[in-house]
Amino acid sequence: MAQEGPDMTEETECMIDRDVAKKLGGVESSGNVKEMRAVVLSGFGGLNKLRVTKKPMPEPQRGEVKIRVKACGLNFLDLMVRQGTIDCPPKPPLIPGFECCGIVESVGETTKRFEIGDRVMAFVNYNAWAEVVCAPEEFVYKLPEEMTFAEAAAFALNFVAAYMMLFEVANLREGMSVLVHSAGGAVGQAVTQLCSTLPNVTVFGVASSFKHAAIRDSVTHLFDRNADYIQEVKKISPEGVDIVLDCLCGENTGKGLSLLKPLGTYILYGASNMVTGETKSFFSFAKSWWQVEKVNPIKLYEENKVIAGFSLLNLLFKQGRSCLVKSVMDKLLCLYNQRKIKPVVDSLWALEEVKEAMQRIHDRGNIGKLILDVEKSPTPLMASDSTETSEAGEEEEEPEGDNDSKERMPFIH
Amino acid sequence: MAQEGPDMTEETECMIDRDVAKKLGGVESSGNVKEMRAVVLSGFGGLNKLRVTKKPMPEPQRGEVKIRVKACGLNFLDLMVRQGTIDCPPKPPLIPGFECCGIVESVGETTKRFEIGDRVMAFVNYNAWAEVVCAPEEFVYKLPEEMTFAEAAAFALNFVAAYMMLFEVANLREGMSVLVHSAGGAVGQAVTQLCSTLPNVTVFGVASSFKHAAIRDSVTHLFDRNADYIQEVKKISPEGVDIVLDCLCGENTGKGLSLLKPLGTYILYGASNMVTGETKSFFSFAKSWWQVEKVNPIKLYEENKVIAGFSLLNLLFKQGRSCLVKSVMDKLLCLYNQRKIKPVVDSLWALEEVKEAMQRIHDRGNIGKLILDVEKSPTPLMASDSTETSEAGEEEEEPEGDNDSKERMPFIH
Repeated sequence: MAQEGPDMTEETECMIDRDVAKKLGGVESSGNVKEMRAVVLSGFGGLNKLRVTKKPMPEPQRGEVKIRVKACGLNFLDLMVRQGTIDCPPKPPLIPGFECCGIVESVGETTKRFEIGDRVMAFVNYNAWAEVVCAPEEFVYKLPEEMTFAEAAAFALNFVAAYMMLFEVANLREGMSVLVHSAGGAVGQAVTQLCSTLPNVTVFGVASSFKHAAIRDSVTHLFDRNADYIQEVKKISPEGVDIVLDCLCGENTGKGLSLLKPLGTYILYGASNMVTGETKSFFSFAKSWWQVEKVNPIKLYEENKVIAGFSLLNLLFKQGRSCLVKSVMDKLLCLYNQRKIKPVVDSLWALEEVKEAMQRIHDRGNIGKLILDVEKSPTPLMASDSTETSEAGEEEEEPEGDNDSKERMPFIH
Repeated sequence: MAQEGPDMTEETECMIDRDVAKKLGGVESSGNVKEMRAVVLSGFGGLNKLRVTKKPMPEPQRGEVKIRVKACGLNFLDLMVRQGTIDCPPKPPLIPGFECCGIVESVGETTKRFEIGDRVMAFVNYNAWAEVVCAPEEFVYKLPEEMTFAEAAAFALNFVAAYMMLFEVANLREGMSVLVHSAGGAVGQAVTQLCSTLPNVTVFGVASSFKHAAIRDSVTHLFDRNADYIQEVKKISPEGVDIVLDCLCGENTGKGLSLLKPLGTYILYGASNMVTGETKSFFSFAKSWWQVEKVNPIKLYEENKVIAGFSLLNLLFKQGRSCLVKSVMDKLLCLYNQRKIKPVVDSLWALEEVKEAMQRIHDRGNIGKLILDVEKSPTPLMASDSTETSEAGEEEEEPEGDNDSKERMPFIH
């Protein structure tokens, strides 16, 4: 798999603003204008487009909640945002991030459901990776008492997406089977847990082999990503599976459709194959887009198959389905309180370590969720024998020729 | 709409075998080999390819049920079979028809669930339009006491398809909305009845305007097929609808998808736009096939939409889902006994009138189901002022130049 550039750690080292780091957790700025630390994406491209800088602190508008952020979720989609490979990205500079959790610091006029001091999690349409976030209350949810902030940052997006795909789009029932292409990822782990809430659901998981030991117990059958898992699944279940969850797209779409039982549902919930190691991302994105196999509805008719797309963020922020998502969140918090589900946290990173965290998700090194812990200090850099290799696109853009790589050891949960 | 040929009624008149007609209901043949009357399709093409002739009577094999047929359902799909515009048609000559009902006359070895004298309905993979049908017992269902044979012939295929689309594929729930493209047809009428079994379901129906008076009460909003119903629906429900049921395909697919709400489901359950008035059907079929708009899965992802195909016959006869269909039939018979659903019969026709019946479904003249009533004698022909117009393809094939058209008056239920 392509690495995201040799200049990463050196770049990160430069990025840390020591003055800002001293103010960890501080509310006040030096002048009248309140400021906060935030991760800022200066333009689409490589890791070097990310900086931690001071930004004006937002204040809650009517119906909004102002959250002192404790932790944020990092998703594969954030990587696509950075590369500019998503549909209609906003214009940079921008603060990335779609989910966070923390403590309510103030509320806007007409805000009814929250009070100062509430522990909450929230979906936001960008701007999550900051010390302070303001969000409309329709996208904010109170945390159960037992839920830690790290768990909360690993909960909202992945569990809501997994639940809605399994139960709203695909109608998962007792005795069915599910194939999940990225079983070790945060959505994958949410899917396996939700499947186990029903009797007799078979989960076929696909993951890189180095994750197998860690996730073997969470699935019924586990396959290596590089193996011919389509044939393996067919050996075990010649009829195929009821539900295929695909976050890769590309050639996997055809494969996934071929594995479906009659009346089975294929759900595309991401397009991570659109992400490459290159910074010429728009071109590679456009190429991938056109290479996606299109589906003839008449073929679906003949084969009795269902193909669906699912994007939780579009559902929330473009399509106005916050009420539906709220009802799903209520069910999920109920399952959490019954200890039937529990988010899997891969690792915690300081805001200043966002590049290393992104490299880890790019390399699909994570098992469960990557968290940005706003109160965490960056781990000191250390020399390493990193085997990271050069990435052409990055080099062309910033030919620093510095291979004296160092790396931080993340806090693995 | 193109007519199916001026030679139709003259052709039909020739077709009636008076000897056979005398034996209506007779079991014995003149020799040792038992025979039965059946509709036979001699080759793919126009109405002139259909004949009523004697065929050897089938005997039940292991696990089969032999049914003395009382009535058969005529579906749009039978018209596509006749034209050869279905996928992988069997080689003619063949007996068309996919559903029938009648009385069990004998059972094969190992057949357990049925006894001689049982009133039953059955799905068959062709061969339904005959006096006697043998079917594996997995495809046979006992009739409720109150159900007439005409109702039974109008029940199985349409109600099972409607139920499975609404509740298995699309997960219809209280408060949702459904658009059905052919609201006046047999599936359309089954859909509207099933929607009314849930509270607060909005049904948008599309039908030719001459049907509106008859079906207005069965739907919430009714639109003319030739009007811009997409805009009309959007005026009433700017967000769109939850479920679109399309049996037309072609350009309707894109329109249907555009009308879907987020998380909505478009279901293609037929492709009647593939049927033209021409006998050069394979060519027009292939052309239509390629003109069908293909769907990019990434677009579904961005829009949170679901596209599904549904073919009950493939599910039963190619994909082995008879157990699932049996469970659906049990639920439907329960609804029938509770008087919540009741099949709508358009008209009853003798086997010898199959051409007129097919013309009627081709012209979409029916409201509800067309039934072949095996015990019915053909209505005497009468001179008429028929305005049927010539159809090029038919004429080329059989240029009889006889415009002295007569027509039979069907028995309208």
